[in-house]
Amino acid sequence: MKIQLEHVADLARGAAILGTGGGGDPYLGALMLRQALQDHGPVDLIDVTSLADSDFAVPFAMMGAPTVLVEKIPNGNEMGAALNAMERLHNEKARAILCAEIGGLNALLPIVLAARAGLPIVDGDGMGRAFPQLQMVTYHIYGVPAAPMVMTDEYSNTVTFQCASSLDVERLGRQVVVAMGGSSNICLYPMHGADAKRSIVRSTLSLALGLGRTIRESRRSSGDPFGALLGYLRTTPYYQHCRVLFEGKTVDLLRETKAGWALGQVVVEGTGDCRGRRLEVQFQNEHLIAREGSQVRAVVPDLIALLDSATAEPITTEALKYGQRIKVLGISAAPIMRSEAALAVFGPQAFGLDHPFTPVEILNP
Amino acid sequence: MKIQLEHVADLARGAAILGTGGGGDPYLGALMLRQALQDHGPVDLIDVTSLADSDFAVPFAMMGAPTVLVEKIPNGNEMGAALNAMERLHNEKARAILCAEIGGLNALLPIVLAARAGLPIVDGDGMGRAFPQLQMVTYHIYGVPAAPMVMTDEYSNTVTFQCASSLDVERLGRQVVVAMGGSSNICLYPMHGADAKRSIVRSTLSLALGLGRTIRESRRSSGDPFGALLGYLRTTPYYQHCRVLFEGKTVDLLRETKAGWALGQVVVEGTGDCRGRRLEVQFQNEHLIAREGSQVRAVVPDLIALLDSATAEPITTEALKYGQRIKVLGISAAPIMRSEAALAVFGPQAFGLDHPFTPVEILNP
Repeated sequence: MKIQLEHVADLARGAAILGTGGGGDPYLGALMLRQALQDHGPVDLIDVTSLADSDFAVPFAMMGAPTVLVEKIPNGNEMGAALNAMERLHNEKARAILCAEIGGLNALLPIVLAARAGLPIVDGDGMGRAFPQLQMVTYHIYGVPAAPMVMTDEYSNTVTFQCASSLDVERLGRQVVVAMGGSSNICLYPMHGADAKRSIVRSTLSLALGLGRTIRESRRSSGDPFGALLGYLRTTPYYQHCRVLFEGKTVDLLRETKAGWALGQVVVEGTGDCRGRRLEVQFQNEHLIAREGSQVRAVVPDLIALLDSATAEPITTEALKYGQRIKVLGISAAPIMRSEAALAVFGPQAFGLDHPFTPVEILNP
Repeated sequence: MKIQLEHVADLARGAAILGTGGGGDPYLGALMLRQALQDHGPVDLIDVTSLADSDFAVPFAMMGAPTVLVEKIPNGNEMGAALNAMERLHNEKARAILCAEIGGLNALLPIVLAARAGLPIVDGDGMGRAFPQLQMVTYHIYGVPAAPMVMTDEYSNTVTFQCASSLDVERLGRQVVVAMGGSSNICLYPMHGADAKRSIVRSTLSLALGLGRTIRESRRSSGDPFGALLGYLRTTPYYQHCRVLFEGKTVDLLRETKAGWALGQVVVEGTGDCRGRRLEVQFQNEHLIAREGSQVRAVVPDLIALLDSATAEPITTEALKYGQRIKVLGISAAPIMRSEAALAVFGPQAFGLDHPFTPVEILNP
């Protein structure tokens, strides 16, 4: 299929839900994607299996704090500069663009780049959600090196990282993001079709699009967007275990932009069926853990999404504020995201959390 | 001439004096240079005029805090890795190595690299002293871009900076130095012979060698190393205005390793002719300003050197400690370092100091 103007709003909404609070403001991403589709025409959304094994494919993302992204808007040229620098490094022309994460802005910007470069975008990403660190992707877990990584900013600065370890790419790169003002454009995990096929989380762009469309349509017809949303997720290969964990009003919010991330927590006071209870959600760009007192309700890598309780519109961590009426969803991560190797990279311990990973469907039977 | 084992101690001593407290521990540099000369033989010290205009020449330096350098010793391979990466970027083989600064370690390590690479070292550097920031060199002032800069560490990490502004190379690079543990290897200001000829401070390696030799010989003969030292400096084209500003004992020392630099100040209590007076010397890797109360005795870019009061052995900022008997020298910077364009880059204001630049010979008539 082709991604066209009519898809932008649905894709942005769906990607923001899968972004579990992170991945950057989808409104900004949607504006940029509309502009790019108007200027350059529709973008081919292709299945990873249609790549030849030798086709060169390059993931693109914004790296940094979502709180910064909304005020430091890309001009668009930095994206092409990153891709061109990567092509020069590899002495090879890209045949397709990949998503690193399906969250918010980071689901949309790779399509912007694809439109500008006249390339197709591959249907999938490296996590089926969003995560705050570069090594937290299936590309890393399945042996694709993060390096070389190219990072660009709005002043045409280009910094290239060649490291044996993907953790070093994250560690050194994060410092440059801070020096670049808190957000940067990156191309990393350059790979060929054969690697993409074995390491990608497939079809997540289509799933995000379907998710966003389902919510929009249900608002007009049934008026029950949450029912429609849960119904849709249950038909998917990854997200079939999903629950409304909590309903309430945000009564406390701590959010800091620190070390290149948006860090903090939000406290939700129960309303309706949840009256008299409190839920606390901790985040590092993305929501990491939802707790009621000492009881864990959901924890990474499972998805924790905060949605407007009337419209089911997703709320990213940088858009959280006091007094929002929200519902909190817990959604199962893709099975390959729950493997032992995967949990070692982005399970609760990777974020300094004390709790072992327990699937959301077991925590909330 | 050829730089041989017999020159190492003299060169290290002379370079440490011209390094005005910075440039890194010369003892460490001398050890590495001895090893390199033993392994690879003598290194040709060539005049910049013997470069062809089209010869590719690459400066090398350690970047970071001298306090870190003494504990995080280079293994040597990072240096060649930086040079090789620069050659690949330019698709050109280096014909010679350049010094960025004549201070301490940074006068010696480029010769180590030259020995390992089988290349000559050019007699000169980019400042005729040491300075803490990358843009503080005549290469920058005379229009040679700092970028591309290649930075390497002991784990074979290679980070490349391509920036339109040399200030951005410093700003972004400094963050990576911190992430690399506080010191890194860099090749920057890649240039051709024609650029080197118009931008280098000439003959400073020879001058450092002569300075170190003069002190050593005077210890054996006259027993008056300071007399010999001042006599030698007065014969040079750059350093002819030189004074013993103060003599005393270090009684207070504040030294922090912060943001990739060694920052602080030392207080010297007068002895002998200076009894009853106090001198305060402030440093950022290198000594920036020497003050007696509100009276400035010497200020950047003029050189402020702290030497052991008996032997005239130079003391770098990271080797300062309580109770050292020292003499403080003020030495004129090279005339091209005192131009308006030069002062804008490394005059007192560039370091946040309130005092206008006044030559040491006017402050101490």
